[in-house]
Amino acid sequence: MMQLLPCYVDEVIRRALTEDINDMDVTTDFLLSPDDVSEAYLMAKDDGVLCGMEIAACVFELVGEGVTFTVLAKDGDTVHYGDILATMHGNTRTLLKGERTALNLLQHLSGIATETAKCVKLVEGTRASIADTRKTMVGIRAMQKYAVRCGGGRNHRFNLSDGAMLKDNHIDACGGILPAITQLRKQIGHMVRIEVEVRSLEELQEALDAKADIIMLDNMDCDTMRQAVAITDGKALLEASGGITHDTIRAVAETGVDIISIGALTHSVKAFDISMKFKRKEAKQ
Amino acid sequence: MMQLLPCYVDEVIRRALTEDINDMDVTTDFLLSPDDVSEAYLMAKDDGVLCGMEIAACVFELVGEGVTFTVLAKDGDTVHYGDILATMHGNTRTLLKGERTALNLLQHLSGIATETAKCVKLVEGTRASIADTRKTMVGIRAMQKYAVRCGGGRNHRFNLSDGAMLKDNHIDACGGILPAITQLRKQIGHMVRIEVEVRSLEELQEALDAKADIIMLDNMDCDTMRQAVAITDGKALLEASGGITHDTIRAVAETGVDIISIGALTHSVKAFDISMKFKRKEAKQ
Amino acid sequence: MMQLLPCYVDEVIRRALTEDINDMDVTTDFLLSPDDVSEAYLMAKDDGVLCGMEIAACVFELVGEGVTFTVLAKDGDTVHYGDILATMHGNTRTLLKGERTALNLLQHLSGIATETAKCVKLVEGTRASIADTRKTMVGIRAMQKYAVRCGGGRNHRFNLSDGAMLKDNHIDACGGILPAITQLRKQIGHMVRIEVEVRSLEELQEALDAKADIIMLDNMDCDTMRQAVAITDGKALLEASGGITHDTIRAVAETGVDIISIGALTHSVKAFDISMKFKRKEAKQ
Amino acid sequence: MMQLLPCYVDEVIRRALTEDINDMDVTTDFLLSPDDVSEAYLMAKDDGVLCGMEIAACVFELVGEGVTFTVLAKDGDTVHYGDILATMHGNTRTLLKGERTALNLLQHLSGIATETAKCVKLVEGTRASIADTRKTMVGIRAMQKYAVRCGGGRNHRFNLSDGAMLKDNHIDACGGILPAITQLRKQIGHMVRIEVEVRSLEELQEALDAKADIIMLDNMDCDTMRQAVAITDGKALLEASGGITHDTIRAVAETGVDIISIGALTHSVKAFDISMKFKRKEAKQ
Amino acid sequence: MMQLLPCYVDEVIRRALTEDINDMDVTTDFLLSPDDVSEAYLMAKDDGVLCGMEIAACVFELVGEGVTFTVLAKDGDTVHYGDILATMHGNTRTLLKGERTALNLLQHLSGIATETAKCVKLVEGTRASIADTRKTMVGIRAMQKYAVRCGGGRNHRFNLSDGAMLKDNHIDACGGILPAITQLRKQIGHMVRIEVEVRSLEELQEALDAKADIIMLDNMDCDTMRQAVAITDGKALLEASGGITHDTIRAVAETGVDIISIGALTHSVKAFDISMKFKRKEAKQ
Amino acid sequence: MMQLLPCYVDEVIRRALTEDINDMDVTTDFLLSPDDVSEAYLMAKDDGVLCGMEIAACVFELVGEGVTFTVLAKDGDTVHYGDILATMHGNTRTLLKGERTALNLLQHLSGIATETAKCVKLVEGTRASIADTRKTMVGIRAMQKYAVRCGGGRNHRFNLSDGAMLKDNHIDACGGILPAITQLRKQIGHMVRIEVEVRSLEELQEALDAKADIIMLDNMDCDTMRQAVAITDGKALLEASGGITHDTIRAVAETGVDIISIGALTHSVKAFDISMKFKRKEAKQ
Repeated sequence: MMQLLPCYVDEVIRRALTEDINDMDVTTDFLLSPDDVSEAYLMAKDDGVLCGMEIAACVFELVGEGVTFTVLAKDGDTVHYGDILATMHGNTRTLLKGERTALNLLQHLSGIATETAKCVKLVEGTRASIADTRKTMVGIRAMQKYAVRCGGGRNHRFNLSDGAMLKDNHIDACGGILPAITQLRKQIGHMVRIEVEVRSLEELQEALDAKADIIMLDNMDCDTMRQAVAITDGKALLEASGGITHDTIRAVAETGVDIISIGALTHSVKAFDISMKFKRKEAKQ
Repeated sequence: MMQLLPCYVDEVIRRALTEDINDMDVTTDFLLSPDDVSEAYLMAKDDGVLCGMEIAACVFELVGEGVTFTVLAKDGDTVHYGDILATMHGNTRTLLKGERTALNLLQHLSGIATETAKCVKLVEGTRASIADTRKTMVGIRAMQKYAVRCGGGRNHRFNLSDGAMLKDNHIDACGGILPAITQLRKQIGHMVRIEVEVRSLEELQEALDAKADIIMLDNMDCDTMRQAVAITDGKALLEASGGITHDTIRAVAETGVDIISIGALTHSVKAFDISMKFKRKEAKQ
Repeated sequence: MMQLLPCYVDEVIRRALTEDINDMDVTTDFLLSPDDVSEAYLMAKDDGVLCGMEIAACVFELVGEGVTFTVLAKDGDTVHYGDILATMHGNTRTLLKGERTALNLLQHLSGIATETAKCVKLVEGTRASIADTRKTMVGIRAMQKYAVRCGGGRNHRFNLSDGAMLKDNHIDACGGILPAITQLRKQIGHMVRIEVEVRSLEELQEALDAKADIIMLDNMDCDTMRQAVAITDGKALLEASGGITHDTIRAVAETGVDIISIGALTHSVKAFDISMKFKRKEAKQ
Repeated sequence: MMQLLPCYVDEVIRRALTEDINDMDVTTDFLLSPDDVSEAYLMAKDDGVLCGMEIAACVFELVGEGVTFTVLAKDGDTVHYGDILATMHGNTRTLLKGERTALNLLQHLSGIATETAKCVKLVEGTRASIADTRKTMVGIRAMQKYAVRCGGGRNHRFNLSDGAMLKDNHIDACGGILPAITQLRKQIGHMVRIEVEVRSLEELQEALDAKADIIMLDNMDCDTMRQAVAITDGKALLEASGGITHDTIRAVAETGVDIISIGALTHSVKAFDISMKFKRKEAKQ
Repeated sequence: MMQLLPCYVDEVIRRALTEDINDMDVTTDFLLSPDDVSEAYLMAKDDGVLCGMEIAACVFELVGEGVTFTVLAKDGDTVHYGDILATMHGNTRTLLKGERTALNLLQHLSGIATETAKCVKLVEGTRASIADTRKTMVGIRAMQKYAVRCGGGRNHRFNLSDGAMLKDNHIDACGGILPAITQLRKQIGHMVRIEVEVRSLEELQEALDAKADIIMLDNMDCDTMRQAVAITDGKALLEASGGITHDTIRAVAETGVDIISIGALTHSVKAFDISMKFKRKEAKQ
Repeated sequence: MMQLLPCYVDEVIRRALTEDINDMDVTTDFLLSPDDVSEAYLMAKDDGVLCGMEIAACVFELVGEGVTFTVLAKDGDTVHYGDILATMHGNTRTLLKGERTALNLLQHLSGIATETAKCVKLVEGTRASIADTRKTMVGIRAMQKYAVRCGGGRNHRFNLSDGAMLKDNHIDACGGILPAITQLRKQIGHMVRIEVEVRSLEELQEALDAKADIIMLDNMDCDTMRQAVAITDGKALLEASGGITHDTIRAVAETGVDIISIGALTHSVKAFDISMKFKRKEAKQ
């Protein structure tokens, strides 16, 4: 596995298989001989960026023995309708039992990578990176964030422990951005960056004065963001966030912000269509 | 909890909290007093069908103590932009730490319920039910299928153990639909229904002769489906499946099929927008 | 593994080993050299039907390395007193540590398969199948149901999700069998069969009118069951249940019912006697 | 809970509920109102010794809220056919969903306690105690051993870590009982007792010379055991083991052995019959 | 719980109780009446800083019911030999069963807090903070890092995901510090800080040129560190690391470094002595 | 693995890796090629006794594929500063990701083995064994007790189930040592030894009269212990416990006690220093 921890991948797949198979596959186990062998392949049914091939290979290993999985396109590759992504040869029962679980993961993660890549493409040539958020599916956040990377995006903080993000409640409780950041710097680990959400240029100035590492421009229009970029002048990273779509993303990027974060990358994923096909066997003699 | 097993809900939420919080919320725990108390509410930012309110309440219970969660709209309710769905009163740290996890689940499940309800509405007056598939997110299949029910849909088989579905491989291995079903009936539990995928009216007839309980019309056009309905004449349930969209669903339903199954209900969910807002506190004296 | 999911089998065995070994085997680890090698074999001490051989092999794999397990009789085979079921060669520590866990599973599952096979034999020539129930041991239901299949029996519903069974409470709550089934059909998934428990021929008629898929004849005498078979005339499956023993099972089967379900198959199992023997080693020179 | 660790009981029940309910109870959840309330009770259908009442109460707590469980007979009590063991009042859905899981545990454990009590009764007046073995059901060994105690029996070692038991392999590897025990005493923890299996009076003498704490007389006839008792003369505890039945147990006990261990107490349990009955509700007005 | 996630604390305690109690406490459960009630208290046997009081309270809740735990000194408090830290009143069995698990956690965490506080005290008045490392005990890293905070220390990165630390291998692979950091900045999330280990002032300069956020001065002598501080002049945070003891820590701090990280805080903990005492009961009449 | 159960070791390591890596190693995964290969070795930085080599090897297997781990010194071996303990060859990413987890376990366990060996050495020639206690780190008790054995020590009871230890509360509740032991013997399993804590020679005599198996001399001075040894005269094992240090241990041992138990062996471990070094690679051409 390229980057994900094998025992994490293993655990996610076990959970998926337990959910999908429970005790047996009544159709397959009752109708197919345990010795039956097939050839099958995965085919892209759309254009996009692939993610999850090693995970899919791992699914078949955990379902049973005897399947050779040959990867033809790897995570991060751009693929096109009709491309053969992998070939499989082995026990037909194993292939049929693993099919749904493998495809569910592969299609979801490739859907994320594909959408991320589209956004990355739309902002090409600007300084903006595309980033994910914590708006993820329970139990597979690490896989989803890996998919964002496969699509060329970058990861926002993983959880509430590893990055600080000040919102209204935090700021109000401390009596302003400056006292809040000051108080936080005194306690927080030195490896943790501090980001502040701002809604106006006044708040931006406050955040700059308080030496925030990153400043999130929350639902600002492009004009205001352009001014924010000018005011900031490289003294902090600027993150644009809130309701950014394919239609608006280029304009946002051109304001000069450093990061555009998009919750929909992981919370509203359109599965990327991949199908698993079996080669028709010759009639048995 | 209405229908879901409490210890299952509990386990999913613990997994989500562990992922999202790990050890602490550095922003909240360092800046807010452990005694700070707030009022907050959940507000719909779109029109749709709600799912996950009891789950959300449970999130705050598991994050910490001291939050009163008052449900104003319940699972299955139709809600509109601006509706207040719940009010919360209690420990501000708990509210802030649970916010993302609660919203992630609530928005995803309400997204499923909303899309299901749209499809149900589109086929109103026909005999067709809307059904889900096994194309689900790992670890939360039961929650997703509950969301489909909240939206007025019905559940297809939960896993490979509790329903039989014959595809090409199964049929080929046995030498035809009739021998396959005959062999299966001899072994399979008497509580399990048998469904057969067919691609032509000839296969349909074979499946009817073999007394399949349900017959899936795989990617057929509406004309063929209408003929299938006429031929079948109530002797089996007919399920239409494959690439059905908002544009085509009404026509499909009007062919007279019994079930329309839609993978996208659970594999390509658009999160339903809900936000959690804090009531601004009076300035401290 | 023939039908069971490997990661489920793995999990059950890990739980068993943790329970039985905890940290070490004080007798074996302190007295035997880590390099000691032995030959051993499994021998049937009774006549019956085997179940659990692949599971037993898996136990030794999980205890440690270095044991070759050669299967001589496989799941579903009829075996006799004195038959050698498997031979093992390898690390003596591994063999001794795995012995109890392997035998516990093997004897329990073979006990189920053997008793099931006896019941199947007793009803031979009738239309009746032998079925299990949900009266199982916690955590190993899937293994027990697999053992029932190995003995020639068939599985009743796995859990409360995958089959509907109407009892008094359900019927009373809806005001009768017909309204109950009607209400249920509107909501339940199309892959789920509906069974009704009846205690009289009047209730049977109601259930038939309501088009129940299966009707359970609860503790009826054989005469009444015969009438039930005549009345039903193939319009539903009939299941006989309640206090059926070796003495009465043949008579029950001859009434013409389709299924005889027996809780004792899994709730009152007599372990099938198998012993693990070590070949005496030549004296060390 | 009297002696068992609550988080262990909780974990076993969660496993059982997940197995038995999965996502929902399709019959109950679709037919009964979430507000429906019932009274029910547990009734003994046989004479025996009860075990598992607090566990059963805990099942209903974990299924859902709103059931009051009133214990009328407690673990270890002797009960008779027709005795009411507990009454329950509360949410009907909860009662129906928990019924099978509660009864499965209660009947199995009471079956163990009842059989243990029978054996204890049969040896009354002798010095022999009845003990269990490691021939248990996976995942519930602690519950089974608790049931043995409820029936008046005593527990043999829990696992391979907490007691030493020398068998042929261990003795052969060390060149005799004396060298084996000598070697073991040097390494083993001082809280661990050492038992030796012997098959003849010569081996018994060897074990006594080696100061074994307990000596197991493996499948010896009563005459030989009587001699063993005389030879031992209180210098070690003697355990009789191997194929002891209701018919032979009294004679074995009268030889003067200290412990009679019986694998069947836990490996071949006959469920104790208990039923859960609902009080018929008045017709709703 | 102040900052730790309740379900994490719960899980750690369940693991500890399962390890320490398994099925029962043979001494306590066999000798004490289930109704026996006692008063007990926790007393400091040394001077130090407390950590784990809420965790200890939680242990008794999970062991059983019926104990009132009154906290008299809370996490982060400085306590002295003889101080009463908490009083407990309730079921004696529960108190005895939970004692060891509660003390094990409390003594270990208070040991960490106490040692951290000593180091903090030693550097008082300098700009140096005391930080932990990833040299922790498996499964309780979050608790250990919480204890460091209770002692006045600050947390280094939690894991390999949430902070970047370049060592020789990374730098060599990229051909120098500058290319390494440049490559990393292009891919790494914007919330992640980058630290570089340096062994000389030349490497320090390289790291500064590459705009590292933090620079670790690995095993440098105080003179070199002083020069490093002068060269750096606030353009990065400086972390001193490697073999720092009570004897050397003040001198290190006075060089002007920002952080002193100490593996021994969590890898070589001396338990802080706390004992649990029972109040002698009046003789029963 | 020599004595520990592989699935236990596996579980501990998975927990550690999940804690330490979460989703990825941002430094290593972003900077090193997945094909990069290195040689590394483990080197002792102190003199002591090794424990954990097979566990360390297992860490690298679970992190990823492609590392050959060659053990040069094994568990229980005495090693010296500068000794090479193992060499590793393989995927650099895997080596870097596993380094911290492997060292954390290895250093902690070797720390225990080393300290145990020191104590064993100090009492050489006396009859005293060195024993551990239940004062352990949560989740790794079995590993810690294994380390004690590697250092030449012996294990006290593992948990509250497998050995009885009577303290004041137990004795008071029963009205004295004799009635307490008498009551306990009637109920406790025959494989369980009974130890009594005594604080005076009067209590010792009582414990001897009650035929306690082991008697713990709690915080007694050496003179009293010598008298205790004389009085006991081999009729029970004597365990010295309470505040024994390197300075006093020899004198304690020379009183003639059988066991000296030391909580600090596992509750106040000083990590044994081992470092992992990479061989500098030739510059790439």
